Amino acid sequence: MAQFLDPDRLFPADPAQRNIARDLYESVQGLPIVSPHGHTDPGWFAHNPAFSDATSLFLTPDHYVLRMLKSQGLSYDDLGVPRRDGAQVAEPRAAWRHFAAHYHLFAGTPSQLWIDHAMSWGFGISERLSAGNADAIFDTIGQQLPRDEMRPLAILDRANVEVIATTEFALDPLEAQGELAAKGLTKRVRTTYRPDDVTDPDHPDFAANLARLGALTDCDTARWEGLIEAHRRRRATFRSFGACATDHGVPTARTADLAEGEKQPLLDRVLSGDFDPQEAELFRAQMLSEMAALSVEDGMVMQIHAGVMRNTDPELMRTRGPNLGADIPQPVSPAQDLGPLLRRFGNAPGFRLIFFCLDESVLSRELAPMAGYWPALRLGPPWWFHDSPRGIARYLDGVVESAGFLNLAGFNDDTRALLSIPARHDVWRRCCATFLADMVARHLIDPSHARELAGWLSYDAAREAYRLD
Amino acid sequence: MAQFLDPDRLFPADPAQRNIARDLYESVQGLPIVSPHGHTDPGWFAHNPAFSDATSLFLTPDHYVLRMLKSQGLSYDDLGVPRRDGAQVAEPRAAWRHFAAHYHLFAGTPSQLWIDHAMSWGFGISERLSAGNADAIFDTIGQQLPRDEMRPLAILDRANVEVIATTEFALDPLEAQGELAAKGLTKRVRTTYRPDDVTDPDHPDFAANLARLGALTDCDTARWEGLIEAHRRRRATFRSFGACATDHGVPTARTADLAEGEKQPLLDRVLSGDFDPQEAELFRAQMLSEMAALSVEDGMVMQIHAGVMRNTDPELMRTRGPNLGADIPQPVSPAQDLGPLLRRFGNAPGFRLIFFCLDESVLSRELAPMAGYWPALRLGPPWWFHDSPRGIARYLDGVVESAGFLNLAGFNDDTRALLSIPARHDVWRRCCATFLADMVARHLIDPSHARELAGWLSYDAAREAYRLD
Amino acid sequence: MAQFLDPDRLFPADPAQRNIARDLYESVQGLPIVSPHGHTDPGWFAHNPAFSDATSLFLTPDHYVLRMLKSQGLSYDDLGVPRRDGAQVAEPRAAWRHFAAHYHLFAGTPSQLWIDHAMSWGFGISERLSAGNADAIFDTIGQQLPRDEMRPLAILDRANVEVIATTEFALDPLEAQGELAAKGLTKRVRTTYRPDDVTDPDHPDFAANLARLGALTDCDTARWEGLIEAHRRRRATFRSFGACATDHGVPTARTADLAEGEKQPLLDRVLSGDFDPQEAELFRAQMLSEMAALSVEDGMVMQIHAGVMRNTDPELMRTRGPNLGADIPQPVSPAQDLGPLLRRFGNAPGFRLIFFCLDESVLSRELAPMAGYWPALRLGPPWWFHDSPRGIARYLDGVVESAGFLNLAGFNDDTRALLSIPARHDVWRRCCATFLADMVARHLIDPSHARELAGWLSYDAAREAYRLD
Repeated sequence: MAQFLDPDRLFPADPAQRNIARDLYESVQGLPIVSPHGHTDPGWFAHNPAFSDATSLFLTPDHYVLRMLKSQGLSYDDLGVPRRDGAQVAEPRAAWRHFAAHYHLFAGTPSQLWIDHAMSWGFGISERLSAGNADAIFDTIGQQLPRDEMRPLAILDRANVEVIATTEFALDPLEAQGELAAKGLTKRVRTTYRPDDVTDPDHPDFAANLARLGALTDCDTARWEGLIEAHRRRRATFRSFGACATDHGVPTARTADLAEGEKQPLLDRVLSGDFDPQEAELFRAQMLSEMAALSVEDGMVMQIHAGVMRNTDPELMRTRGPNLGADIPQPVSPAQDLGPLLRRFGNAPGFRLIFFCLDESVLSRELAPMAGYWPALRLGPPWWFHDSPRGIARYLDGVVESAGFLNLAGFNDDTRALLSIPARHDVWRRCCATFLADMVARHLIDPSHARELAGWLSYDAAREAYRLD
Repeated sequence: MAQFLDPDRLFPADPAQRNIARDLYESVQGLPIVSPHGHTDPGWFAHNPAFSDATSLFLTPDHYVLRMLKSQGLSYDDLGVPRRDGAQVAEPRAAWRHFAAHYHLFAGTPSQLWIDHAMSWGFGISERLSAGNADAIFDTIGQQLPRDEMRPLAILDRANVEVIATTEFALDPLEAQGELAAKGLTKRVRTTYRPDDVTDPDHPDFAANLARLGALTDCDTARWEGLIEAHRRRRATFRSFGACATDHGVPTARTADLAEGEKQPLLDRVLSGDFDPQEAELFRAQMLSEMAALSVEDGMVMQIHAGVMRNTDPELMRTRGPNLGADIPQPVSPAQDLGPLLRRFGNAPGFRLIFFCLDESVLSRELAPMAGYWPALRLGPPWWFHDSPRGIARYLDGVVESAGFLNLAGFNDDTRALLSIPARHDVWRRCCATFLADMVARHLIDPSHARELAGWLSYDAAREAYRLD
Repeated sequence: MAQFLDPDRLFPADPAQRNIARDLYESVQGLPIVSPHGHTDPGWFAHNPAFSDATSLFLTPDHYVLRMLKSQGLSYDDLGVPRRDGAQVAEPRAAWRHFAAHYHLFAGTPSQLWIDHAMSWGFGISERLSAGNADAIFDTIGQQLPRDEMRPLAILDRANVEVIATTEFALDPLEAQGELAAKGLTKRVRTTYRPDDVTDPDHPDFAANLARLGALTDCDTARWEGLIEAHRRRRATFRSFGACATDHGVPTARTADLAEGEKQPLLDRVLSGDFDPQEAELFRAQMLSEMAALSVEDGMVMQIHAGVMRNTDPELMRTRGPNLGADIPQPVSPAQDLGPLLRRFGNAPGFRLIFFCLDESVLSRELAPMAGYWPALRLGPPWWFHDSPRGIARYLDGVVESAGFLNLAGFNDDTRALLSIPARHDVWRRCCATFLADMVARHLIDPSHARELAGWLSYDAAREAYRLD
């Protein structure tokens, strides 16, 4: 009775509203994908390799999936997640069988939507993964992966990806970007400047990293002016590889506006390694403001992703490393914390800040009022745990009335999983159509205006927010 | 296809629910408006002048509108917002054209609902403002404004406003109120006692203001007893001009219950000008409790509006002043912060406190449970950014199950914009009808009881909460 | 027109969704009730007495009801709530009349749903309580109460209660449990170990209680090792009376992981009576971690109920005591506060923690991501003020996408009111059916999977979460 990936999925149940939503969705379904923030591997596009098997495509790199399986008692060993000690873990087919046998755990989660969509869209699979079809699906995927049309660049084409941004740390050698430039792909596959490795004193290699940044840019990064100049030069290098934005992953949204005389002593302190948590926080805060100052200069769009407590499971970190599911959101205080930055740059011509967090309580209370005032501020789309049908609905419910639609930055898929890109944009477009259909049905907006806004949210907003020319 | 101001706007999409909502709305649509808290100019009603033009009526005084235009890069100069330095800004027609050309920005915001309604209701305009009709609408409005039926008192009559409260600071000369008394309008246009100018040590003229309060009331306001007596007398004066309530705009909800011996030293400290932020906060906190004590004596209903960070853009404050869009909500902690006040007065016979904030996370967590216990406490309606269809829906969703309907204070329009009053009450009544229709359709309430509650929320609750006799 | 307790109550208004919801509900309506956490009196089941009258059954023990009546100005004297000074309060029939005359206050609250259901289910009453039928209903109930089928054990049978847990403090003599054991009821009526009386230094009798615990268990509870051993033994005693879980009512979720050398000095300090609030908090925090360590040993499921400010009205506490409506929720910080406990035990084989709080802002931000990672963690159902149709909807909306369904602990009625048990489970089952029906209608889940999940949420989840064999 139930159809796999019903064409009306996610639309409202009320027949009249559903018809409106379907029309709106159909008007945007074919628009190109703009993916201005994410974590795909630039080497995929530079070298265009074939993927090896279903497990390494769908399971082991997907922290959404791994965490849920672990929460129900499965071990990362049995799921084939590599260990730092090199000890044996399950081989791909065995891991896949475990995953398939527990795929019902993902009912009601966005992971199911994304994986179902990717299996259908990518491989023509027409039934949901289960213990019963685990081997067949593993084999179907394995047979198709070596084909040319399953290589990364072909996937970009098939998915109609107009532009995609990857994210590199400040010290990244940018080798893949050199290759991309040689292939004329710099405007399609753009890097993003994420200098957390040289702005966070709590980074284990912070002092060494600052020295490396100095070497890369021929600046004295032990001096405040030299440090800022090093960023200025490194940002220019990133721009030469297509970067139109910077990104800053920070535990809080705190920014600062130190007096000139306070900066060098703070840098000395954090470089010495002998600093307390407040000093580390103050340094991150001041660096955010410095990055804003550089954005005012060079026009790069500034992104802040704030409020995640990283690596909350020390056992996982020790045995396998980061980004495997143990990161948990925490509250943020953007009205308070962004104050020093916005008081300096909130009205600066050409400055743009896109803010993301995982604390939904600030959407209607702080972020939407702020975005509805400051010319510099745009609201990033629902992030991470909230990039989901209900998360999107709560987001639009919380922000539109005070921020309007035009202060939203469209959609980011923010993913490491290449095949989830079309799936995630599809969910966003369906959920936006559903939101707008309710407004049309309740006579809050004209159908023609709703179509314009559906297009804005699906495509134009991201181009405008990130200044993609 | 879409009708301007569709008669079914805001009702549910489901046909059965919509019919119920329409019936409920029709039962309250014609009820008089009770507007027990707001910021209209009492001079309008005392002197009954004609408004001058569309821009000064709809654009320049409306911080909701100005902020949104600014957020999308328009300048306040081009929108005709006066500058403190007296430099030239756009004249009204030019400003209006800018506004009209960007009116699409308000899609999905309550501003559009209010302005559409006001243009239709006030001036018979039957299409939405746009670049194309900007001049025609500017002229239509301009031609009608000089007519008698567009003067403030006629607007009160046309809108069926039974009673409206304005808000004056403690030191206000109350001249308009004298005129209103002479015209026998004191019970229809009531003042409200808002003593923030003499209770907030962070007010730039605090010490001078306290001296002026002393002079006005013949009390020694440098002595604690004299200060309280001065409030007692000033409140009586306000009551003689119809005031039935006080109002307190405070950054936090903090209240205090100092020992007798601590009060005079704190007053000395804040009067000296040499005090820290904690002392200022403690003085405000204690003054809230003192105001409660006076309300127990004199029966005035106490309103607290807590949790706004004011004037977050120093450039705007310096060039043009306050109330132009740069005020941002912040979290509040009513369960903790109102404790000292409620422990003393929460059960006091006759005491009534109406609490407002912009932190929706406290609605279900703290405010509804508190209002469902303390006899003194009523919940103010959704305020400011949340006086909107979705804000109202979230409010009712968050409070009714723990506070019931009878502990709600009905609706406040809280506006400076005279023509938005009928629009705002209309949105509230439609949204309440929608909320109740869902309850009827889901068999949680009888239709006849729903009609009673629609009337309560639309009219009786405000009269009862503010003790309008 | 409106039917009392319409069979479709709480289902969605949309006809197609309603049909799906009704089918799902019908598939779980007859499942046995599992009630793994609550506050019924174990003496009821041990001694099986008849209840005396409607007032002592429905009014005086129900803090939800009393508080709402008080908030609207009724006095606890007039409602028959006993006073500590023994002074006369209203007799049952007079109190009942007051209650009945104000029953309209409960419109929109879960209390009305529960009481309507209990009157219908328990006594065959077919109209809503009101002033007009107060005496008749009082008499109807009074006539039925002496009958055998209205005695506690018969009510368990009629309500199809498979297992029910009561909650006893560590020092409870467990007399009723002895009687239950003699009757072979230990597996049906289980106790729960709630050691707040010996873990909270702010308890007025804390030191004496620790001494009593030592005496009961033959341990030196003034020594840290002795204290832990005393808990170990007392937990074993509780297990012998069917306990499968512990429960911890704490103001915050804070946990600690003190070094061995810090524990005895802290115990000495709190036993001395000369300690500050931070030390009391630290002791509670460390005791939570110790309880987790004992759960790892003995397999008892650990429940934490965090974040209530108790007894906020000192006048009520002084005149009548606790649990009469003046408890107010406060914010919690589980990601931060549970860290020390989860870092030690979050991956411990066999450990299970079920967490409850009243701060809905942490559901999507912290709790669902945490439960979707840590094998030890399950999310308790909506608690107290949020055990209501809208509270349940917000809960499922906030947790399912990140935690899935399988990390939820099913339902707890958590009640002192025996007759509300079937009513509360019925509301939960209807609301789950409504939630799942929306997913089916929007093609997010198959109908057959929805039926499985309806059964899981209604029955299996609670058995699994609490390890009921």
